[in-house]
Amino acid sequence: MAQSSQKINMADVARAAGVSMATASRALNNENGVAEATRRRVLAVAEELSYVVSPEASRLAGGDTGRVAVVVPHISRWFFAALLEGLESVLRAADLDVLLYHVDGIEDRHDFFHRLPARRKVDAVVVLAFPVGEEEQRRLGLMGVTIIAAGGQHAPYPNVSINDETAGRQAMDHLLFLGHRRIAMIAAVDPDQPDEVQPSGRSNAYYAALRDAGIPLDERLVVTVDWGGDQGADAMAKLLSRPEPPTAVYAHSDEVALGAIRTLRRAGLRIPEDLSVIGIDDHPVAELTDLTTVRQPVREQGELAGRMLLSILRGEETEHDVVVPTQLVIRGSTAPPRS
Amino acid sequence: MAQSSQKINMADVARAAGVSMATASRALNNENGVAEATRRRVLAVAEELSYVVSPEASRLAGGDTGRVAVVVPHISRWFFAALLEGLESVLRAADLDVLLYHVDGIEDRHDFFHRLPARRKVDAVVVLAFPVGEEEQRRLGLMGVTIIAAGGQHAPYPNVSINDETAGRQAMDHLLFLGHRRIAMIAAVDPDQPDEVQPSGRSNAYYAALRDAGIPLDERLVVTVDWGGDQGADAMAKLLSRPEPPTAVYAHSDEVALGAIRTLRRAGLRIPEDLSVIGIDDHPVAELTDLTTVRQPVREQGELAGRMLLSILRGEETEHDVVVPTQLVIRGSTAPPRS
Repeated sequence: MAQSSQKINMADVARAAGVSMATASRALNNENGVAEATRRRVLAVAEELSYVVSPEASRLAGGDTGRVAVVVPHISRWFFAALLEGLESVLRAADLDVLLYHVDGIEDRHDFFHRLPARRKVDAVVVLAFPVGEEEQRRLGLMGVTIIAAGGQHAPYPNVSINDETAGRQAMDHLLFLGHRRIAMIAAVDPDQPDEVQPSGRSNAYYAALRDAGIPLDERLVVTVDWGGDQGADAMAKLLSRPEPPTAVYAHSDEVALGAIRTLRRAGLRIPEDLSVIGIDDHPVAELTDLTTVRQPVREQGELAGRMLLSILRGEETEHDVVVPTQLVIRGSTAPPRS
Repeated sequence: MAQSSQKINMADVARAAGVSMATASRALNNENGVAEATRRRVLAVAEELSYVVSPEASRLAGGDTGRVAVVVPHISRWFFAALLEGLESVLRAADLDVLLYHVDGIEDRHDFFHRLPARRKVDAVVVLAFPVGEEEQRRLGLMGVTIIAAGGQHAPYPNVSINDETAGRQAMDHLLFLGHRRIAMIAAVDPDQPDEVQPSGRSNAYYAALRDAGIPLDERLVVTVDWGGDQGADAMAKLLSRPEPPTAVYAHSDEVALGAIRTLRRAGLRIPEDLSVIGIDDHPVAELTDLTTVRQPVREQGELAGRMLLSILRGEETEHDVVVPTQLVIRGSTAPPRS
């Protein structure tokens, strides 16, 4: 299908839809002067034929839309919203409009990427904080527009992110430096994203840090859950039911860490006297709850992605992989283990 | 200016820009076949003249854009992001695109509304969670598109919201029922919004509840701060410096309440044994931190606004003011005062 879709041209679409070339062109370019029913028929036929206006043809036809599509897997979670806020601020300042696409779950995601090539409404697509699978990359490619990514790894596109493994090492090294040896990990995965594209840097950091410290791995101290506070709380309950519970917990995110802390408090345990907990992110609530964490600059990643996109649209050279630094923020949830 | 802008027609714009009527029309309707420089000149002239394509003319010209503008004062705060997520889900299901406009601060807001009428790119505008001033209403009106509001009061537009005064009463009545008489209020205002449009229902609830309970008002127990956790922390410090501190604190939001709790913990006070704290919202973190609060359904307000907008676009009748219920959620941060 990738092969044949390259060969479809506007004449094919016009013929299949039973309209003139001029009408097909107007319908595909979303211009006026085409009856709604006709427009829908042309678009349906174009989609069926996987017809894609070539970027060159589109540019010749005066293609700049002044719009950028932003694709996000979540909106109401702080991390994604902060990325979006940073990105939007830069695009707005450049007078570009932001079209927001929330791709919510695997079904939705499949549908979005399937329909993507027919959506020739934007100059660029920004993929926020999720890894893009191979078939999805192919669909994105068919659009023939600029694509960049932010807040996630594994993108073949120009992208802005943190180094998850470095962030995880900063968290683990802090716990090891305090003298902890029985360190648990609450690993988080996104149930709405395909397994093969889940980043694993934060988990790799755990295994590498233990190995480098000469501490044998105890698999009973690793619990994997979906992202979220309640899931962190459940994971902590599991860890407390082990014959020999940990003295410290490394959680893949602050929300997961906060859930773990709720379980500890309900069990009557004190933090950090009885157990240390560390997260990753520096979620605004981490400061309010005195949570030790590894800060990543989130809004800034969105802003950098926006500036990178503007450079590309202006035809300038840009870096391909921009990695922003993370930083340990020590607050009240970590301390040396009880001796 | 409101008067004269009504009389400007396309011929005026064409004349002032030195182009033909056909070219002016194409430029204003964002069609192809107009040189970029010409298009910019026509739009600049149109904006200068406050020219607005009349909705009737626009509809006759085949005006449906399939796009809805969503205007938000904040993106990365949970409340706003959750509203947006609910709204986007409904609009996306109806195959409408969401254009996101973040109006960040008073300057930005002024600029946005000033330029608004020239942005004839959408079928509707949804104003999320901020009250719209009179001059802003006039600018919105010039667009001649459907306008609705969600998550905030004082809208002359069809809108979805909670009753802030009822929510505040639910919080206050809970504290009064537990036996508290020295109740402080941490009131929150948005520094980025004009004072005259700030909703005051949550404050009114405090005064009314005290009055109904026959408790004399002590103004030293009221502290007003900007929205935010750090601000709540500062406000709590002020309250603890009073000669006779409160036994309970009613905060206008959960984030403000969490800040207050951080100050109490740092002062070595126990919650709820030494002091009770209640918020409003049921922010996801409230559950993780065992905060008693008044829940408002936020995502649902966004969804309802989306459905209301679809009804209006289909020409159906809808309610003008939809008020969604709030509900007390008792957790571990409130208890009777020490006797």
